[in-house]
Amino acid sequence: MRQGKGSDMVDVIMVGTVALDTVKTPFGEAVETLGGSAVYASVAASLFARVGLVGVVGRDFPEKHLAFLRSKDVDLAGLEVVDGDTFRWKGYYEYDMNQAHTLDTRLNVLAQFNPRLPQEYKNCKYVFLANTDPEIQLNVYKQMHKPKLVMLDTMNYWIENKKDALARMIEKADVLLTNDAEARQFFGTPNLVKSGRAFLNMGPKAVIIKKGEHGALLFTDGQCFSAPAYPLEDLVDPTGAGDSFAGGFIGWLAKTDDLSPRNMRKAIIFGSAIASYNAEAFSLNKLQSITRDDVFNRYMMFQDIASF
Amino acid sequence: MRQGKGSDMVDVIMVGTVALDTVKTPFGEAVETLGGSAVYASVAASLFARVGLVGVVGRDFPEKHLAFLRSKDVDLAGLEVVDGDTFRWKGYYEYDMNQAHTLDTRLNVLAQFNPRLPQEYKNCKYVFLANTDPEIQLNVYKQMHKPKLVMLDTMNYWIENKKDALARMIEKADVLLTNDAEARQFFGTPNLVKSGRAFLNMGPKAVIIKKGEHGALLFTDGQCFSAPAYPLEDLVDPTGAGDSFAGGFIGWLAKTDDLSPRNMRKAIIFGSAIASYNAEAFSLNKLQSITRDDVFNRYMMFQDIASF
Repeated sequence: MRQGKGSDMVDVIMVGTVALDTVKTPFGEAVETLGGSAVYASVAASLFARVGLVGVVGRDFPEKHLAFLRSKDVDLAGLEVVDGDTFRWKGYYEYDMNQAHTLDTRLNVLAQFNPRLPQEYKNCKYVFLANTDPEIQLNVYKQMHKPKLVMLDTMNYWIENKKDALARMIEKADVLLTNDAEARQFFGTPNLVKSGRAFLNMGPKAVIIKKGEHGALLFTDGQCFSAPAYPLEDLVDPTGAGDSFAGGFIGWLAKTDDLSPRNMRKAIIFGSAIASYNAEAFSLNKLQSITRDDVFNRYMMFQDIASF
Repeated sequence: MRQGKGSDMVDVIMVGTVALDTVKTPFGEAVETLGGSAVYASVAASLFARVGLVGVVGRDFPEKHLAFLRSKDVDLAGLEVVDGDTFRWKGYYEYDMNQAHTLDTRLNVLAQFNPRLPQEYKNCKYVFLANTDPEIQLNVYKQMHKPKLVMLDTMNYWIENKKDALARMIEKADVLLTNDAEARQFFGTPNLVKSGRAFLNMGPKAVIIKKGEHGALLFTDGQCFSAPAYPLEDLVDPTGAGDSFAGGFIGWLAKTDDLSPRNMRKAIIFGSAIASYNAEAFSLNKLQSITRDDVFNRYMMFQDIASF
């Protein structure tokens, strides 16, 4: 059963997880709240563009979350509801908030999920393949008809266990998203500049290395851009930071349909602005209430932080 | 015995160590080369301003190093040559280059050193108190007559062992320089923004948190500036990075005599530019040959790296 009316009018599709998260941080706890890579990315991108979400949930998935996504004009034609329970993640962050510690992962309906894109999504120009098995990412990629921009995320697990498939997927991606640890791990070098350039040589036109509290680096042909992080004094929950960043980034590109390095720099700041809001509250509690004006305001604060 | 003719014409004085370093990195080794905080800071600042160096060496200190410092117009009226051997540091960097590992420290003549400023330095407006015992820093501070800007560096050892004296010195400093680990340690918080603001509340008008490969943060009243790091692919030897940064920073301020937050931002980029050159070769091998034009060129590359 599909949970949307379908549309050939989406600007960008997000393929990833829809989850019920239980998260504990030094500032509190959230139990069975809305989460998942496709959700964070979709809601972030919805500030700029018309989004289609591709994922799976079980019969237990609360209707209120579907209603919330629809209220953000997120198209749900690609969200399957199947027998079984929704994917659940339970974890905590210690005081330094830099790393999520997993207590329990229940794949549930995600275990058998192999996304099939709705027909009307196959011509979409922008697609985000959130972190999952690279063979599944390749399978989704094959269903697309000449997308203009494919953005890829991954994680250390796939570098360790499916590096060949991941390499094949990286060759096809236009924008590769990694964090600093993954970038060092992939090429066995501590130098992020070397890693960034080596990834570019594999095929992508742009490589983004996320550095958490230290911002992000963007490598494009012959250029390097260093984006600052927002100086957040009250970080409450970092869950979804990477995916809301990704959503803001690709949402801005889809809205402007401009893939110049200059516009990618702007997209990174928009992604960072949205991710910084996201970290100010649990789950999507902050993201659900911010407006495009809020994002533009924070964009201007980034300009102030970075100017000299 | 003083090693200089003395001058009331220096713009900035650097109080710190003069060393003979033996350093090993994955890219080679340098044995008994010129080093020390006052040396790196002085040579870096000499690109912009007239520098006086305050420190001590033993009778074994090679004349060629004195000649080199004089060739950079570094005034040596404050450099004492005393009986005994020069301070020596021996260490290595592992592949990630983030942390120096000490193999051997021989304080030698440094053990008894308590700097006495030449009379003609006491009215100097700009002074850098490089890392040492905060009680010695306080002693030097008391010898100055109303300096316009006192910049202070320290290290984890003094936070652990002389925190009260260090706090008294921080209260008197205009610019505090720390690295990220020290900033977190001092206030027992992982959040650098919180630490930066808490340091400001102790007295300094500006706090700089150095983050190595991730750049630096500058906190001034109500403002935060995030400076990028230069994307260095071939880092050869990070020794002296912090002190050449400090020298470039205070050298620019002394040259321009402008302490506005805007000009401090520029000074941070000039310091970062010089520090990035310094890391491209062992000892001062690169610093000795760069010109002010080189520094301006790299400043412009920082503008490109940071702009959006």
